[in-house]
Amino acid sequence: MSPPDKFIVNLCPTGMVPRKARVPHVPITPEEIAADVRRCHDAGASMAHLHARDDDEEATWRPERFREICEAVVAEVPDIVLVVTTSGRNWSELEKRSAVLDLDGQVKPEMASLTLGSMNFPTGPSVNSPETIVGLASAMNERGIVPELEIFDAGMADYARHLADRGVLKPPYYCNVLFGSKGTASLSAANAAAVLAALPAGATWAFAGIGRFQQAANTAALALGGHVRVGLEDNPYYDWSERTPATNARLVERVVRIAAELGREPADPVEARELIGLAPVKRDPA
Amino acid sequence: MSPPDKFIVNLCPTGMVPRKARVPHVPITPEEIAADVRRCHDAGASMAHLHARDDDEEATWRPERFREICEAVVAEVPDIVLVVTTSGRNWSELEKRSAVLDLDGQVKPEMASLTLGSMNFPTGPSVNSPETIVGLASAMNERGIVPELEIFDAGMADYARHLADRGVLKPPYYCNVLFGSKGTASLSAANAAAVLAALPAGATWAFAGIGRFQQAANTAALALGGHVRVGLEDNPYYDWSERTPATNARLVERVVRIAAELGREPADPVEARELIGLAPVKRDPA
Repeated sequence: MSPPDKFIVNLCPTGMVPRKARVPHVPITPEEIAADVRRCHDAGASMAHLHARDDDEEATWRPERFREICEAVVAEVPDIVLVVTTSGRNWSELEKRSAVLDLDGQVKPEMASLTLGSMNFPTGPSVNSPETIVGLASAMNERGIVPELEIFDAGMADYARHLADRGVLKPPYYCNVLFGSKGTASLSAANAAAVLAALPAGATWAFAGIGRFQQAANTAALALGGHVRVGLEDNPYYDWSERTPATNARLVERVVRIAAELGREPADPVEARELIGLAPVKRDPA
Repeated sequence: MSPPDKFIVNLCPTGMVPRKARVPHVPITPEEIAADVRRCHDAGASMAHLHARDDDEEATWRPERFREICEAVVAEVPDIVLVVTTSGRNWSELEKRSAVLDLDGQVKPEMASLTLGSMNFPTGPSVNSPETIVGLASAMNERGIVPELEIFDAGMADYARHLADRGVLKPPYYCNVLFGSKGTASLSAANAAAVLAALPAGATWAFAGIGRFQQAANTAALALGGHVRVGLEDNPYYDWSERTPATNARLVERVVRIAAELGREPADPVEARELIGLAPVKRDPA
């Protein structure tokens, strides 16, 4: 198997958990997030997976805040692939989780996260019922938004195929497989094989790793022909032995250096859309 | 690899879901359950994994009802390995889920179920938070009760090893791997390999299958050197193409016939305790 030359860097700069007190370089405000997307785009990122925070760094589902962030991001990098979260980690109601899908105009999301089951995080359960999953998938289908399928375990890959077989999920399939969260699949060859064997046919896939597993998961994906998700959302440290605080740009730069050793280059946003199967997007420069 | 000659049949006669209207032979009353354990013991079952129902067939956590059931069972089959559920499917409070662990005397449970994560059933989420899992494990440790570790996905096998490494779980380890529930691991070679690779060292393991996957999961375990869990809790039909209602005894008899073709015989309860590493139990005959 010869991996495709180009690989997609999905940047996850912020997430719901990291705060500046512990993760000093995490971007929180729209301006900070846009500046990080700019730096990381210039280093090789083509997708931005965005969460919203309020002025106290609290995660928020409110679409007004998402709009501010997305507007700042596309003003800074007009061609970035725009991905928004629908995470239910801090709230479970479908209306809150899907509110961001109604953003329109220049900031209409091209993709949105869709976690394919319930599971435990170390801090407690994260519940995504079958009804919620189908509800979010339907809302995305209606709006022409492609899911970023978040897969934390073998059974979630099975569930992706099940939903694809039923037509609840429609191509293109982009699967982000997250390894190393305590409570779901660890990063192991057997777990990776189980997940990859179960994905819907034709899926584009990326590996993400939580915390100390980010770099290994990214590197394994590069070696095996996949793509990567990288950023401070998943991992606060550049070097775990020294606990060196990471920046999003340094994390992207490192994964691009490793890929270069393997003869792979980061896709630009136009190429990323082609690889995933997204429609071309033309946004007006700011 | 040559599988051990003897294999353990863990009978799950009742569960929380099947009702007589749809599953005519499901045993509900203490007398019915005891009679089924007798028939299935005589066919080869050495363990009984018991749930309690009230007079309206509703699942109940009340220890008085569990006591009646366990007393009827050990009066009928004094040497059966007694396993009780701590399922949180219909209630989540630790006090309710652990109440059954206080049964004592002739009906002190030797084992109790411990589901190692949160997940989706087709009907909705089943939440087992890290705190609940640790709480149940500690309650079992204090009482000398060995967990029946219920593993629905690769990540739960990883979590079993994690808890074993931390000393939250102590040997012996008995792992019941359940395949085929929509939302968690399907029955596939890759999923089976991922789970088996992750189990704590020295674990005894069994495969269970939900619904139409019961027979295949049981048979795969027999072929690969494992043990089985079988019964109406997991599967209502003897023949899925004809939708022939099963009885617990017919399900056990079939798995024993298949095993015989492989040169494997069912362990009796004394042998099952030796294989798992349980202490011998001497109950007075009724």
